[in-house]
Amino acid sequence: VNELGRRERKKRETREALAAAALRLAVERGVENVSVEDISEAADVSVRTFFNYFSHKEYAILGRDPDAGERLLRRLREAPAELSPLAALRSAIEESLDDLERDAVAWSQRAALVAESPMLLARLVMAGADDERRLAAVLAERMGVDADDPAGRLTPLLLAAASGCAIRVALEHRGTTNDARPLRALVHEALDQLATGLDHGNPQGGVVRPEQRDQA
Amino acid sequence: VNELGRRERKKRETREALAAAALRLAVERGVENVSVEDISEAADVSVRTFFNYFSHKEYAILGRDPDAGERLLRRLREAPAELSPLAALRSAIEESLDDLERDAVAWSQRAALVAESPMLLARLVMAGADDERRLAAVLAERMGVDADDPAGRLTPLLLAAASGCAIRVALEHRGTTNDARPLRALVHEALDQLATGLDHGNPQGGVVRPEQRDQA
Repeated sequence: VNELGRRERKKRETREALAAAALRLAVERGVENVSVEDISEAADVSVRTFFNYFSHKEYAILGRDPDAGERLLRRLREAPAELSPLAALRSAIEESLDDLERDAVAWSQRAALVAESPMLLARLVMAGADDERRLAAVLAERMGVDADDPAGRLTPLLLAAASGCAIRVALEHRGTTNDARPLRALVHEALDQLATGLDHGNPQGGVVRPEQRDQA
Repeated sequence: VNELGRRERKKRETREALAAAALRLAVERGVENVSVEDISEAADVSVRTFFNYFSHKEYAILGRDPDAGERLLRRLREAPAELSPLAALRSAIEESLDDLERDAVAWSQRAALVAESPMLLARLVMAGADDERRLAAVLAERMGVDADDPAGRLTPLLLAAASGCAIRVALEHRGTTNDARPLRALVHEALDQLATGLDHGNPQGGVVRPEQRDQA
């Protein structure tokens, strides 16, 4: 166990050193002017080692950690059975919110780089789409959706997409208003609204009346 | 009025000819091997005329029509006051769903190109972010959100993002399952779920109980 713990810790340290070097170099030179070779050299590892941790230089700059994704899926699988799918998802993303808050400076640097680099934006979106698909699959399991029931797969996909949407909206809201609430509070407010329904101002409070749906 | 009508029609025809040429060339040669010059020549207009219609070649390939965006915002502003914001949004996007259904072949070609070209994906996401911001601003107006109330801007932004999310999820669902329902039905099912709340399986039906929120 000690040996395993040491190996895990070293692995995490190497990943963090590569991600930190990649972000620093991209901030200094621009995303397009940084290569995998540059990042590997700055973190004092071989190019081959780099690719053990990240499949693309953009994922290093974004600090994408596949282990963090796996941990989220595991927490979702292990969340108490009495929680609704959304409540289980909400509890599972707490650690991701910790990461976002702890690395706030790195995340704001990444956001600035993404605004400048279409390739970085594309990789961010592709990674998000992958995460969403895997999240939807675990939610479908949790909800007992039959593999032969294509219609039943819409709800877990929507849940996965909407929770990603809540995080993105919270980040965008914080970046474009002077709302002083912490990111975590904004994400939870968005998730509360998704949980209880977005049909605000409807006199029946969250329920779409059939005659209203016909008008729409 | 006749003169205006003719000018509008010619403008629409030129835009459609450019978008059709851009898509055809991109399918034939790949996105990276098509230039604004190629597209303009294929549609028999000058490069200067091209830029009257599209700011980037990617927007021509995507068939992005700023007039369609403006029409959606106008429909949203003009929707009956008694509709909830989400119901108004739902009625306003009907025409966009018509476009998606009518141009189903073009949209599936575009989806295949986006999967191959990070630059095209990046432009699609950037255009979507622009649309979302403008949509959120009109929703904020409609909801009477005070310009000095930063916290109040979260809800219109979430509504705009969630409706985009519903369309994206419907497209993704249709592309990855053999659910035979038409796109429109899938979008409306996703919007129904967003309207009534995503806390499925919660015994209180869409309402998050405080003790459950604490667990999460």
